[in-house]
Amino acid sequence: MTRLPATARVTRTARRTGGTAVAARAVPEEMPIALSYGGTTHAVMMATPADLEDFALGFSITEGIVATAEEIESIEVQELGAGIDLQIRLRDKANKRFEARRRRLAGPVGCGLCGIESIDEAMRAVPAVGDDGFILSSGDITRAVTQLSTHQKLHNETGAVHAAGFYVAGKGIVAAREDVGRHNALDKLAGALARAGVDGASGAVVVTSRVSVEMVQKAASMGAPLIAAVSAPTALAIRTAEAAGMTLVALVRGEEFDIFTHPERVTIGAARHVA
Amino acid sequence: MTRLPATARVTRTARRTGGTAVAARAVPEEMPIALSYGGTTHAVMMATPADLEDFALGFSITEGIVATAEEIESIEVQELGAGIDLQIRLRDKANKRFEARRRRLAGPVGCGLCGIESIDEAMRAVPAVGDDGFILSSGDITRAVTQLSTHQKLHNETGAVHAAGFYVAGKGIVAAREDVGRHNALDKLAGALARAGVDGASGAVVVTSRVSVEMVQKAASMGAPLIAAVSAPTALAIRTAEAAGMTLVALVRGEEFDIFTHPERVTIGAARHVA
Repeated sequence: MTRLPATARVTRTARRTGGTAVAARAVPEEMPIALSYGGTTHAVMMATPADLEDFALGFSITEGIVATAEEIESIEVQELGAGIDLQIRLRDKANKRFEARRRRLAGPVGCGLCGIESIDEAMRAVPAVGDDGFILSSGDITRAVTQLSTHQKLHNETGAVHAAGFYVAGKGIVAAREDVGRHNALDKLAGALARAGVDGASGAVVVTSRVSVEMVQKAASMGAPLIAAVSAPTALAIRTAEAAGMTLVALVRGEEFDIFTHPERVTIGAARHVA
Repeated sequence: MTRLPATARVTRTARRTGGTAVAARAVPEEMPIALSYGGTTHAVMMATPADLEDFALGFSITEGIVATAEEIESIEVQELGAGIDLQIRLRDKANKRFEARRRRLAGPVGCGLCGIESIDEAMRAVPAVGDDGFILSSGDITRAVTQLSTHQKLHNETGAVHAAGFYVAGKGIVAAREDVGRHNALDKLAGALARAGVDGASGAVVVTSRVSVEMVQKAASMGAPLIAAVSAPTALAIRTAEAAGMTLVALVRGEEFDIFTHPERVTIGAARHVA
């Protein structure tokens, strides 16, 4: 496939206190990207057309469609007129599991789930994070967000793109992905880590956005013991992280931040001893 | 139904340069909200449990399921354990139209659309905005965003909620709604306007967020000739607004802003005469 541009230059009228000018500006691209399994679309996301194989793999993992990259036989990126179709072929066992899920989602009379079933599906159980003694210092939290900003190529160009990165103590940000959608950025990161064989339990997920419950669900699917965010969490995200045993750090601004759940994984300055 | 809280108070560890404290903070509530038509769920959105009748009506309008509030027979808010089911009953004609759409979305063999069909559905044609001489001044743009902030009760409490408002020249912000999701805030606004009988062509949609294509699609469904946003637009949002004849103003910061499409609807200072 040809490489699709992730940004576009547009001409706009810029009203400034000093006057008005017509000038160019970079904006992020966005297009409908279908995720199809066995030829049928499971979801369509409005996303930035970059790192599409990572997106296909990461979405499959964070949505619980596959457990590992090995369960995917092939990913084909098909450019269609107005968007992109990611054609994903699952290996036999994963495919059977997915077909059973699809039949269940179609409902007993083929017209979909009722409200309570749909809500249960949206609130599916999140895997618990392993209690493996993972620890970050407050300096790590600050470095993770600071270093992520150096990976935000699209954002630095357009000012309008989210990023998700993976921070490993002593190594820094080992992978980062960007997208106009914060969920998509996290899915792309999950795919990038799986392709590189990086264990999600070995570091922290770092995001530039707010933390909704879906961000916690996805980070838990990756096995990450800690998620750190530039912006604020929702109450449901906090409850979900608490139940999953995940540390949720948010509102990271320089050296200041808030720890909403499981603070035992963050050592704060000299005031605290860690065994 | 009992009134659900839109925010929650949580206790978190606040790391500050001056030291560390354990203290309370308000965060926005979020829960899965199913939108069900005729007993079957059409979509589940993670949303703030407030203004739910507005949400049900507005979503139905902006998704093209109904054209007017009159096409809805009833909206019932059902509180379930983990979420809320908005049970929407359509009147006969709208119901027939919706059932036909549902059958089409289920695909010929009942297992969903293929990629190209799904992408076409996501990129459905947006209604063109009427060319009715709608004009705002640059002062209106500034006032719209400034006034919207005075309606952001949940955001001012939590720092993490989006708002959508409707600005009418000479009247100011006539309605505003908030939600953890920017699309949901706009859907709630659409519902609030429809319930109040406010013509979407009579003012501007003002949002605190970025402008993705879906925000333009929804604003166009409301008939709004202008959308103004605090943050940046995507390339696809710009192309869609251009095609729909909608003025897209973004990056509104005080008296400064950028006009990306159809600048003829904004009069800028004294430098320009308007007939």
